[in-house]
Amino acid sequence: MRAEMGRADSPAGEDRAGQERKDRERPFRAALALLPQMSPVSLPRMISMAGGAEELWELLRRGGERAAALVGGEKAGEWSRACRRTDPWESLEKLARRGIRVILPGEGSVPDVLWRIYDPPALLFARGREMPRGMACVAVVGARKATSYGRRCAEQLAAGLAEGGVAVVSGAAYGIDACAHRGCMQAGGFTVAVLGCGIDRVYPPGNAGLLAGIAESGCILSEYPPGDEPQAWKFPHRNRIIAGLSLAVVVVEASSKSGALITADFALEEGREVMAVPGPIGHPLTEGTHGLIKKGAKLVTGVEDILEELPPEAVQRPLDGSERGQKGMVLPGGGISPLEEKILRLLGEEAGTLDRLSLRAGEEPREILVALTSLVLKGFVCQDAGGLYALSPFVPRGILS
Amino acid sequence: MRAEMGRADSPAGEDRAGQERKDRERPFRAALALLPQMSPVSLPRMISMAGGAEELWELLRRGGERAAALVGGEKAGEWSRACRRTDPWESLEKLARRGIRVILPGEGSVPDVLWRIYDPPALLFARGREMPRGMACVAVVGARKATSYGRRCAEQLAAGLAEGGVAVVSGAAYGIDACAHRGCMQAGGFTVAVLGCGIDRVYPPGNAGLLAGIAESGCILSEYPPGDEPQAWKFPHRNRIIAGLSLAVVVVEASSKSGALITADFALEEGREVMAVPGPIGHPLTEGTHGLIKKGAKLVTGVEDILEELPPEAVQRPLDGSERGQKGMVLPGGGISPLEEKILRLLGEEAGTLDRLSLRAGEEPREILVALTSLVLKGFVCQDAGGLYALSPFVPRGILS
Repeated sequence: MRAEMGRADSPAGEDRAGQERKDRERPFRAALALLPQMSPVSLPRMISMAGGAEELWELLRRGGERAAALVGGEKAGEWSRACRRTDPWESLEKLARRGIRVILPGEGSVPDVLWRIYDPPALLFARGREMPRGMACVAVVGARKATSYGRRCAEQLAAGLAEGGVAVVSGAAYGIDACAHRGCMQAGGFTVAVLGCGIDRVYPPGNAGLLAGIAESGCILSEYPPGDEPQAWKFPHRNRIIAGLSLAVVVVEASSKSGALITADFALEEGREVMAVPGPIGHPLTEGTHGLIKKGAKLVTGVEDILEELPPEAVQRPLDGSERGQKGMVLPGGGISPLEEKILRLLGEEAGTLDRLSLRAGEEPREILVALTSLVLKGFVCQDAGGLYALSPFVPRGILS
Repeated sequence: MRAEMGRADSPAGEDRAGQERKDRERPFRAALALLPQMSPVSLPRMISMAGGAEELWELLRRGGERAAALVGGEKAGEWSRACRRTDPWESLEKLARRGIRVILPGEGSVPDVLWRIYDPPALLFARGREMPRGMACVAVVGARKATSYGRRCAEQLAAGLAEGGVAVVSGAAYGIDACAHRGCMQAGGFTVAVLGCGIDRVYPPGNAGLLAGIAESGCILSEYPPGDEPQAWKFPHRNRIIAGLSLAVVVVEASSKSGALITADFALEEGREVMAVPGPIGHPLTEGTHGLIKKGAKLVTGVEDILEELPPEAVQRPLDGSERGQKGMVLPGGGISPLEEKILRLLGEEAGTLDRLSLRAGEEPREILVALTSLVLKGFVCQDAGGLYALSPFVPRGILS
């Protein structure tokens, strides 16, 4: 048994040798990524040109002609001085003391599919919990200025994915991203935020609480070094990692210029499933999603549409038919009164005026008006300009079934 | 030239001969359809078994063994007496005096594609105007208990089709059907109502005004004889004619058990385009439409999606690109105030509480509240349970562009 394990061609032997190689490379990759001159966009190419991370580090530290060829003649001295000021092992230790891990290409603490994309990152900085090995990821992304409908969709799909044992990946932005993370966490799932800045930055500032929650129950990843500031160009570049981690990308709401469409494009290029949630036509935030569906993205009406596209082994606790049947939209902001429910049922049969509803319900008009106003505010009832009340498209199906 | 026209094998000669044959058949087909014992479902088969409408009439009138074989032995006498009481030419004249035309298979006053379906009707009763020759039809169908969103979609798509020179076919039911007819007429288009009862019946009763309008600017068709009452089984059977007349069937809102899905099925079987308008997920009236899109129906976000699937010659006045760009949802029930517009813009940037909106708008909270309430009633703004206001999915794109 031991002899077998020692064999260089055995998988276990390869794993062990590979792990040793990674552990040797880790301080150099980390130190390289932390160099103030380094761009994460160039790092993978530079490592491959130098023949390895340690080799690149030595080359840059020494300076000279080969370093000048890599970083530009006049800058080689500056790079060399930066390397000489740095002890790679110390850099790694400092990160570890701050709770920051460094994940190298091929390491199983993120899904293997990430490392098969066209331009995988040279490393990922991570904080929070380790992702359970073998857990599949699905990205749920969309507009920052999302509607309440989109927010609800994102939360509920993310919760359904969590219940299916699937991790939810998103970008921690306002709107759909935040709701995806939140919905997953509220359902007890594992969520992954991929940032376009250092993982220790609180960006966007309003999501401080969300990021703290993600770090506690999920994890935060970035290829940008800790402290790195958010910049516009980093977000689309970051999106390839959101898509790369995921077996499917679900776009919930997106304008025709949304960054979520970039994530969908990356997913398409990498052969991952692209899906989109439809919504009312004529609204800017459905232009992107409907455009995707027209181009072949799968229309998603519920989490089962996502789960059924994943390999069976990726879904750890698939919902059975009876459970699925009961899944519907849930009531936002508490329940409804018996009179409100009665009115919804009457409106389900036929739209009506206040007077007519009062007659049909057998209640005083002013009682009906109070209930109607509450229903309008809850978004369940619409009023026409002519004073006609009708069910809105937001009525949860549970109420009228 | 004259010699050529007289030739039996010339197209003109065939047309003339065909027309003469139809004119000879017309009174018999009409009289047969008007027989109280006759079912429109059996009529085409009976005519073909008898070798023609006149032959069938004579056979039934005479009674005897062959008639008994067709209608059942004990009933042949009753049929024979009914025929003997009737003068087919007089029946046709009576219909004409009431403004009712009889359209025979192959006649060009309805699109030719109708007569190529699996089971075309033996005739159509028609009132209203004659459809312009060569005009293409598109069906716009959907739920009776439609939402205001669905109604608006149906009206606007129908108006766009009318502007494209395409006739809009529907079933004159409440909800989507009515809005499709209305939208077409309001845009000056030609609309066709196909009924599941006699064309002189006012059904459903609430659509009396609509039917009168259709008879004035469009036409009403039915294979059921005048006076025939509406019955549940007739509506799905009628749907094959709605689909048969149309190059495409557009479903706007439909529950999973909607009759509109039957129309879509007929369209699919006859190789016509099937399209559907998406909407919010989790609502019963998008289950049918989203189900169609999942099965391959084209997702429709605007009339251009329909027009581009029609043969170019069917679209008489295609919209050019610049016109299309300006098409969006229009404001229902009048415009909005400058303060309302300001609030929509602020909410477009970020959701907010009353106080925060008041600060950002630089207006008194009570002014903001009045405007917000109006916007909520118009369906443009939603309020969360926590008192946060946000744009609803119904905000017309024109407002925020």
